[in-house]
Parts: sequence; C-alpha cells; structure tokens
Amino acid sequence: MADTPAAIRVPAGKLEAFIARAFEAVGISAGESRTIATLMTRADLQGSEGHGVFRLPQYVRRIRGGAVNVRPRIRVEREAAGMALVNGDNGMGHLVMRFATEKAIEKARSAGVAWVGVRWSNHAGPASLYASLPLEHDMIGLYLAVGNANHLPPWGGLDMLLSTNPIAVAVPAGEEPPIVLDMATTVAAYGKVKTKAQRGETMPEGWMMDRQGRPLTDPQRANEGFLLPIGGYKGYGLALIFGLLAGTLNGAAMGKDVVDFNADDTTATNTGHAIVAINVEAFQPVAQFKESVDTLIRDLRASQRLPGVTRIRLPGEGSHAVRADRMKNGIPLPAPLAASLAALAAELKIAPLA
Amino acid sequence: MADTPAAIRVPAGKLEAFIARAFEAVGISAGESRTIATLMTRADLQGSEGHGVFRLPQYVRRIRGGAVNVRPRIRVEREAAGMALVNGDNGMGHLVMRFATEKAIEKARSAGVAWVGVRWSNHAGPASLYASLPLEHDMIGLYLAVGNANHLPPWGGLDMLLSTNPIAVAVPAGEEPPIVLDMATTVAAYGKVKTKAQRGETMPEGWMMDRQGRPLTDPQRANEGFLLPIGGYKGYGLALIFGLLAGTLNGAAMGKDVVDFNADDTTATNTGHAIVAINVEAFQPVAQFKESVDTLIRDLRASQRLPGVTRIRLPGEGSHAVRADRMKNGIPLPAPLAASLAALAAELKIAPLA
Repeated sequence: MADTPAAIRVPAGKLEAFIARAFEAVGISAGESRTIATLMTRADLQGSEGHGVFRLPQYVRRIRGGAVNVRPRIRVEREAAGMALVNGDNGMGHLVMRFATEKAIEKARSAGVAWVGVRWSNHAGPASLYASLPLEHDMIGLYLAVGNANHLPPWGGLDMLLSTNPIAVAVPAGEEPPIVLDMATTVAAYGKVKTKAQRGETMPEGWMMDRQGRPLTDPQRANEGFLLPIGGYKGYGLALIFGLLAGTLNGAAMGKDVVDFNADDTTATNTGHAIVAINVEAFQPVAQFKESVDTLIRDLRASQRLPGVTRIRLPGEGSHAVRADRMKNGIPLPAPLAASLAALAAELKIAPLA
Repeated sequence: MADTPAAIRVPAGKLEAFIARAFEAVGISAGESRTIATLMTRADLQGSEGHGVFRLPQYVRRIRGGAVNVRPRIRVEREAAGMALVNGDNGMGHLVMRFATEKAIEKARSAGVAWVGVRWSNHAGPASLYASLPLEHDMIGLYLAVGNANHLPPWGGLDMLLSTNPIAVAVPAGEEPPIVLDMATTVAAYGKVKTKAQRGETMPEGWMMDRQGRPLTDPQRANEGFLLPIGGYKGYGLALIFGLLAGTLNGAAMGKDVVDFNADDTTATNTGHAIVAINVEAFQPVAQFKESVDTLIRDLRASQRLPGVTRIRLPGEGSHAVRADRMKNGIPLPAPLAASLAALAAELKIAPLA
C-alpha cells in the first residue's frame, strides 16, 4: 500500500512500548500487555495495516466497555493426541491465539500434526501472525478464523450471515523466504475497506456490491452493501467451510450469532479460530523439504511473464520486503491514525507515542 | 449440467459392473476392480461427469501403457499419533485414497484429528469422494490434491507450473444433507473443459486465457492457453499452498515434476494427496454439532435473495439432488461417451454395457 504523504515513521520498538502502555492502562498485566503489543507491532511491520495499531483504539474501547476479559484464564478444555480445544475465557485474541498456537506446536512434536480449535476468543489481528509461529520450529502453520463482523451474504442472497473468514498458511523454505499466504475469502478484506475509508480513498469495483446488486465504491457507504466472495459461489463455499471449522466445530460464534465488533463495545464475541501445526520432520527430512520448496519458488519466479509483468511474486514476498524496510526505517503512521493515537494517550493518561 | 438430448440412461449397478470388468481385464484383482468401480460410479451418481466413467478409457490406456501398477503394495511409510504417510506404490488412485482415508478415520478415532499424506498415487476421481467417506463416522473430511496436469501459471506468468489443485471438505449435518464443498482453485476444473470439448460446446469467458492474455472460449484449443485462478492472485496462492501440502510435503510430484496424464500413457505420476479426518466427538457432542449445522443451513437458505434468484444453495446440494435422480432413473451417458465405452468393451473383449 502506498503511504500517504502525511505519514510519519515510528520505530517498531517505540510503537510496541506505546501499545503495551495502553493495555496496561486498561487493566491487562504487564507481561500480557507486552505479548499483545509484540504481535500487534509485528502486524504493522509486515504491512497488515488494517490489523495492527490501527485497531488499538477499538480494542481499548471494547475493553473499557466490558466486552473483553482483561484477566482471562485461558485453558485447554478437551484434548486428544492430535487435537485440543482451547477456551480463551474471552481474553484478548492475541493472547488466546498465542496460547493455542504454542499448544499446537507442542503437540505436533510428538503427534506429527496437531489441530487446535479455539472458542471464546476475540479478534487477534492478521491470520498470518499465527500461521507463521510454527515456522521457527520447522513446522507448517495453517490458520482459519471466523471474522468479527458479517459482511458477506450466501451466494445469491442479501442477509449478511457470513464473515470474510480468512485462511493463512505458512510454509518454511531454505534460503528463500517462507511462503506465507494470508487471504480473506472475499475479494477484499473488511480491514482494507476501513483503511480506504480512513484515507478518504474510493474502492475499486468488485470489492463490494449494494443490495440492488450494483457496484459500491464509496467506503463511507460500506454499511449499505456487502463484500463479494472470490470466485463467486466458490468463495462463498470457502467462507462457509472455514467458518464451520473455526467456529461451529469449536462451539464458537458463526452465522447469525457473530457479533459485529465494529459496532458493539459491550458484547463478548465468542470468536472461533483453528490452528494446525504440521511437523515437517514427521513426513521427510527437513533439509530435503526445504530444498524442494526453494526449487519450487525459483521455478515459479523464473516463469516467462505476461506482457507488462516485471516480476512473478510468491505469497508473503511483499510482506517480507515491507518488514525489512520497516525494521530499518520505521512503521509509517498516516496522520489521522497518529492523531487518534495521541487522543488515546491523553484519554488513558499514558505517555504519548512521539 | 444439462444432459444432451442424445444421452442414454444406465442403471448404476450396470455401470459399476462394467467398470469392474474393464479393470479385471487389464489385470487388477476382482476385489480391487470392484472397489474402483464403486468409487467411479459414485462420481457419476453425484454428477462429477469429468471424473467418473468418462475417465475409464484413459485409465485403461495408462494401465496398458505400463504407467500404473495393477498389483500395488499400498502401505504406511511413516506414522505418528496424528498423521501417517502412505505410499501408494503407483496403484490406481482410488485404491490408494480409499486406503489412506480409512487410515485417517481409524487414527482420528483416538487422536481426534488425523492428517494422512499420500505419495506415489494416481488420479483418484473427484475430491469430494474421499472428503465424504468420514461422514458416516460422524467425522469431517478435508481433502487436498495435486492435479494431474499443469494448466495454471503463477500469477502474471506464462509457464504452466501449477495444476487446478482442488480442495474438498465434507461436514455432517443432522436432518439436512451434509455440506460438501468440492472445488478446483481455478474458475473451471480441467475436467469441465474436457466435457465441453466432448460435447462440442464453447466455454464462457473467464475460464481460460491464451498466452497473449486474451479470453479463450474454444475447448478444442485448450492446449493453447491456461486456466484462470479464482480471485486472481488469491487462487494462485491457494493452488500453490494446496500443492505444497498434498505434494511437496509428501515427496510427491509438484511444479515442473507433474506429469500430464492426459498426454502420457507410460509415465508414473507420483500423485500426491492429503486427507484429514476430524472426529466431531473430540470437540463436542455429535448431536449438538449436527443441530448447529442444521440451524446454520436453514438460516442461510432463508436469506433474502437478490432479484432473480429463486433459491439459496448450500455446497453439495446440487450433487445431492443429482444423486437422488440418478439412483432412481439411471446415469446419463452422452452418445460419444457411450460409443467410446462400446469401443473399449470390444478392445478388452468384455461384455458391453448395454
């Protein structure tokens, strides 16, 4: 995404410390505040603008509204060799998903593959954050979630009964960066719509449609229409299936029970996720696998190109480059976001970001 | 799909017996021939025209060409509590996937979730066949595969390094039919292109593109272009990820190693698949889950509709209705297919279908 001219750059460490201060101010322990701040900053570092510090005022608002439990007892409710069901006790999603992913990694060490379902969680930021955690253990991560607001009707319908239910999968490579796919099952994620609105930009046709079936391009009018699924009925099918696996199977909210957390500061969302850790070593020697992935990446990148295309990209490559830039040059904050964070600091009586 | 006027109807039992005769004639045991025939007939019953008896002449050709092992020793190569890696010994894909799915179901009984990877397999018919097998055990099935011919370049590229790598997921319901999603990661599966070609029909714009980026609508010219992924770069990402999980992870063919089994009757394909069985009981009481799925299905179906839409459909609903019709009235065979099966019977010196 192009940065607006007014954007300032903030070092990751400063942003992380500020986020941690904000959560401490609303009653989350110092250690857990730091965990959330690290994950949220990681989202901004990788370019997931709609899912990083941009969400902080909303998270704080919901905590102050009593919608989120600041002292959760996150725990395993059910367990077998290849699975666990985690109850997040309505804690911040980042804490719940960190716990669940660590559980999946631990179980996959012996079971080879472990699937951990999650209920009573909350919005946890970008899907790829959690899919990527198994990478450092030479594992593949696969993450599914029920989105925190319904913006998608069933194919052919008008009632918004489905969310953008995303999938993220991270696959370790050798010398190449890992392959990290992170996608909503809609053409655009709702976070992108919110970013467009905040920046005062219009949306391309194909992102949203109004209730008469006409293209909707004004993000300020987003609540008058709905997002469009990828591949028509196929994207509808994927959103439904990912919701069944991440929501219904875990006893988490799905369909009409999903709470629109953008419009509600007081109700628990019972957000559902699923994280799968796949231990490469169980299938073949890790070095051999990584070499195969490197070869595949290079073959794809070396493909002949359509006229006008300068480079074949791999999923996650863009985020990888953005992260390298932002680690060095800081995280850009558009002026409206910087202003809202300054207001938040004043409201919470914490040291501001600047 | 509308049946062509010339189509005749054949009872499922007759078709199944004919398919079994054909495989026995080329050296597969009576029992295994029957297993393949049952699964192939099931494909035709559910309306997967591109993946049922339509493929029989090709399967026989490849067996006679020495590309497929008629006496495979299908076996578990690696195993842990939540996973197994199956080596299909280059047997017919239906036999290998039947074995792998049974293994996944068996393991999921104790592990809760079991992921079984497969290598040295072959084309196994429609993805939903295997995703649906866990249903009768009150389990969810999830299936991924590497397609048997590359028809998809990386996004922006021209070299066909990826296949239509499908996903199928089957979720049990209570009083409602199960939800069964079965989709290629391309706008159209290549089997549909072949069916169009066989029927002498043209393809809609958006299915394929030629090497200059222009729409390709003549299925006879399919080898001059490539399939288009759903959602642009998102579908490319899904095809890549499903290929990594079903192929690379298992030591099966992926990328440039994929053999085009439509054009080659002598080379083993080393086809990769993955099947995951998720035991609902490990997560919550089965009856409660099924009730939730029924409620969701009914909520979706009751949605207000866009102008001109007469019914909201659930994934698998179409196949469910087709199956009911074909169980009662027989499986329609278009005249060209009936002729090719008659020729096959003569060639193999077996009793014909009619």
